[in-house]
Amino acid sequence: MKFNNNFQLIGKNINIGKNVSIGDRTVVYDNVRIGDNSIIANDSVIGEPVNDYYHNKEYINPETIIGENSLIRSHSIIYAGTTIGRELQTGHRVTIRENSRIGRNCSIGTMCDLQDQVVIGDYCRLHSSVHVGQKTVIKNFVFIYPSVIFTNDPTPPSDVWLGVTVGEYTQIGSGAILMPGITIGKNCLIGAGSVPAKDFDDYSVVMGNPGRRIGDIREVKSRKFDGPYYPWMYHFDRGMPWKGIGYEEWLKKNKADGE
Amino acid sequence: MKFNNNFQLIGKNINIGKNVSIGDRTVVYDNVRIGDNSIIANDSVIGEPVNDYYHNKEYINPETIIGENSLIRSHSIIYAGTTIGRELQTGHRVTIRENSRIGRNCSIGTMCDLQDQVVIGDYCRLHSSVHVGQKTVIKNFVFIYPSVIFTNDPTPPSDVWLGVTVGEYTQIGSGAILMPGITIGKNCLIGAGSVPAKDFDDYSVVMGNPGRRIGDIREVKSRKFDGPYYPWMYHFDRGMPWKGIGYEEWLKKNKADGE
Amino acid sequence: MKFNNNFQLIGKNINIGKNVSIGDRTVVYDNVRIGDNSIIANDSVIGEPVNDYYHNKEYINPETIIGENSLIRSHSIIYAGTTIGRELQTGHRVTIRENSRIGRNCSIGTMCDLQDQVVIGDYCRLHSSVHVGQKTVIKNFVFIYPSVIFTNDPTPPSDVWLGVTVGEYTQIGSGAILMPGITIGKNCLIGAGSVPAKDFDDYSVVMGNPGRRIGDIREVKSRKFDGPYYPWMYHFDRGMPWKGIGYEEWLKKNKADGE
Repeated sequence: MKFNNNFQLIGKNINIGKNVSIGDRTVVYDNVRIGDNSIIANDSVIGEPVNDYYHNKEYINPETIIGENSLIRSHSIIYAGTTIGRELQTGHRVTIRENSRIGRNCSIGTMCDLQDQVVIGDYCRLHSSVHVGQKTVIKNFVFIYPSVIFTNDPTPPSDVWLGVTVGEYTQIGSGAILMPGITIGKNCLIGAGSVPAKDFDDYSVVMGNPGRRIGDIREVKSRKFDGPYYPWMYHFDRGMPWKGIGYEEWLKKNKADGE
Repeated sequence: MKFNNNFQLIGKNINIGKNVSIGDRTVVYDNVRIGDNSIIANDSVIGEPVNDYYHNKEYINPETIIGENSLIRSHSIIYAGTTIGRELQTGHRVTIRENSRIGRNCSIGTMCDLQDQVVIGDYCRLHSSVHVGQKTVIKNFVFIYPSVIFTNDPTPPSDVWLGVTVGEYTQIGSGAILMPGITIGKNCLIGAGSVPAKDFDDYSVVMGNPGRRIGDIREVKSRKFDGPYYPWMYHFDRGMPWKGIGYEEWLKKNKADGE
Repeated sequence: MKFNNNFQLIGKNINIGKNVSIGDRTVVYDNVRIGDNSIIANDSVIGEPVNDYYHNKEYINPETIIGENSLIRSHSIIYAGTTIGRELQTGHRVTIRENSRIGRNCSIGTMCDLQDQVVIGDYCRLHSSVHVGQKTVIKNFVFIYPSVIFTNDPTPPSDVWLGVTVGEYTQIGSGAILMPGITIGKNCLIGAGSVPAKDFDDYSVVMGNPGRRIGDIREVKSRKFDGPYYPWMYHFDRGMPWKGIGYEEWLKKNKADGE
C-alpha cells in the first residue's frame, strides 16, 4: 500500500539491509548504507549530494549510514556524509545536512533543519522545526521542543563558528534561541522563548530575554503528584532505556556493564 | 494542466464528492471522505496512516473527512482520523495530525504544523508556520500570524498536556509563544514576539517576554481613520460571514436564526 | 543521475536557456523564462499559478523570470509573476510568492517563505525558514539568519500593510521579529531574538524585546583579531563582489564605473 517498489536506487555501492521498505519516488544515491528493518517513506532522498556535485565531474558522494530499525517519514532529505545510529525516527520534510553524527534512538521532528557538522548523542528528541546550526553539540537524553534555534556566529557574517553545547538530560523549551558558543549544563530547563547568551551550570532553570537563571530545576514541582518533578528521569520513561526497570536500576546496570 | 489524473486512490471505502480535482502523485488512503467541488493539489497525502500502521497488520485507518469547496495546496499531509469542515484553504506543505477537529471556512498557511487532538473553530486563519501543540483549543474567528507556537507541557518531558485555549476574535501576533494551559480571552491582541504565561481577560493587549497586559484593545487606534480599530469585526470583513451586511447585522441575523 | 528528463513543461511560451537542467517531477507552467546554465532540482514548481487559476477559466499566468546560473534546490515553489536575478541559490522547499522582485546573487535558504510584493536587492542572504511579509523591502548585501520574521500589519487583521525596510549591509540575527512599518538603517546588527518596534539609525546594535539600541556596531570587536569587526565588508568576502580585490578597491571601481 505505502510501498510499491517505485523508488530509485541510483549509482553504486548501495547497501540496503534485510527487510527494508522504501517508499515511492524516494531516491538513494551512491555510497549509502541502510540498516535492517528500516522504513524510508515516500518522496525522500538519502545521500543527497553536496554542493560540489553540481560543478565537479569527479565528485564522489561521501558515505551515508542510517542504522537499523529506523523510520524516516516522507519528503525528508538526508545529505551524504552523515552517520545516524539505529532506531532513528523522523517526522516529515526533515533536512539533515552533510558530515553530521547522530546517535541511536533519536527522534527528529517534522521540518527540523540540521546543518552540517552537528553532533547529537543518543536518545535525543527534537520536536518540530528545530534549527541546529553548524558545530552544535548535543549530549545524550536532551529533549528540544518546537522551533528552538541553535546559532553559531558571534559576529555575523564571519567564518568564526562557535557551536552551542548542551549537557545530558537538559530540556530546551519551544522557541528558545541559544546564542553562539554557550554551554548549557546537564539537567537544565531552558524556558520557552528564552534567549540564553552565556553559560549556565547544571540544574539551572533559565527564562527571559536575555536568559537569566531563575532557580534550580530540583525545586520545580510536579503537576501530577506532590513533590519535585526533576530530575525527570525518575518520572518519565517513554522511549527511554530505563523503561520497565527505572532510572536508578538502569544506572546501576550501566555502571556494572562498564566495569 | 494541474490535474492529469495521475493520483492514487488506495484501498477501500473512499468517498470522493462531485467535481473534485486531485493533483498528480497525491495519495488518498482508506476511509477518506472528500466533499464536492474540492481541490487537492499535487503531491499531497490525505488520510496518512498513523504510527501503528507500520507495525500492526490488523491496522484500520480511522476516518478522515474534508468538507466541500476546500482547496488543499501541494505537498500537504493530513493524517487519518481528522475532520475538517467545508471551505478549508491550505498553503503548501501543511501537516495536520490525527484526531483533530477543524471547523468550516478555515485557512491554514504554508508549513503549518498541527499536532493531534487539536480543536479549531470556524473562520480561523493560521498564517504560515504556526505550530499547534496537542490539546490546543482555538475558538471561532481567531487569526494567528506566522510562526506562533502553542505549547502544552508545563514540566517537560511529561505526560501532562495542558493545551492553550484562545477565545473568539482574538489576534495572535507573529512569533508569540503561548505557555502551557493558559486561557486567552475573547477579543485580545497578543503582540508579536510576546510570551504569555498566564490567563488574560477579554480585550487584553499583551506584549513582552513574559507577556504583560499593557492595555485594552478598544483603545488601539486605527491607522486609516480617526478612532479605535477594535473590535476589528466592525472594520474588516474579508472572508468573514458578515461580508456585505456588516457585523452588527450579522449578529442580529444569527440571534434571530438561533431563536 | 539527478536529471533524468522526467520533468514537465506545461503550456505555452516557456523559454528555457542553454544548458539548463531540470529535475524529475519538476513542473514549469506558462510564461516562464529560465536563464542559461541554471539548475532546477527535482519536485519543484516554477511559475505556480496564483489563486485565480482555480476559479477563472480565462486565467493567464503572469511572467516568471529566473536569471542565469541559478540553482534551485528540490521541492521549491516559485509563483508566477516574480522576477529573480542571476545566480540565485535556494535551499529545499522554498516558497516564493507572486509579484516579488529579487536581485542578483541572492541566496534563499531551506523553507524560506517569501510572501507576495516583496523587494529584495542584490547579494542578499536569507538563511533557513525566514518569513518575509508582503511589502518588505530589503536593500543590497543584507544577511538574514534563521527564522527571522518580517511583519506588516500594525492593526491585525486589516488591509493596512506597512512593510519593513532594511538598509544595506545590515545583519539580522536568528529569530528576530521586525514590527510593521519600521525602517532599519544601513550597517546595523539586529540581535537574535530581538523585537525591533521602531526605526533605528545606521550602525545601530539592537537587542531585546522590545528592541533597544545598545551600542554602535563599529565598537563590536572581532573574535579573531584585535580590533573592531564592523563594517564587516572589510573582513568578509565569501560570495561578495569584492572578493579578491577588497571592499575599498571594489567601492572605488564601482564609483569609477558609475562616472
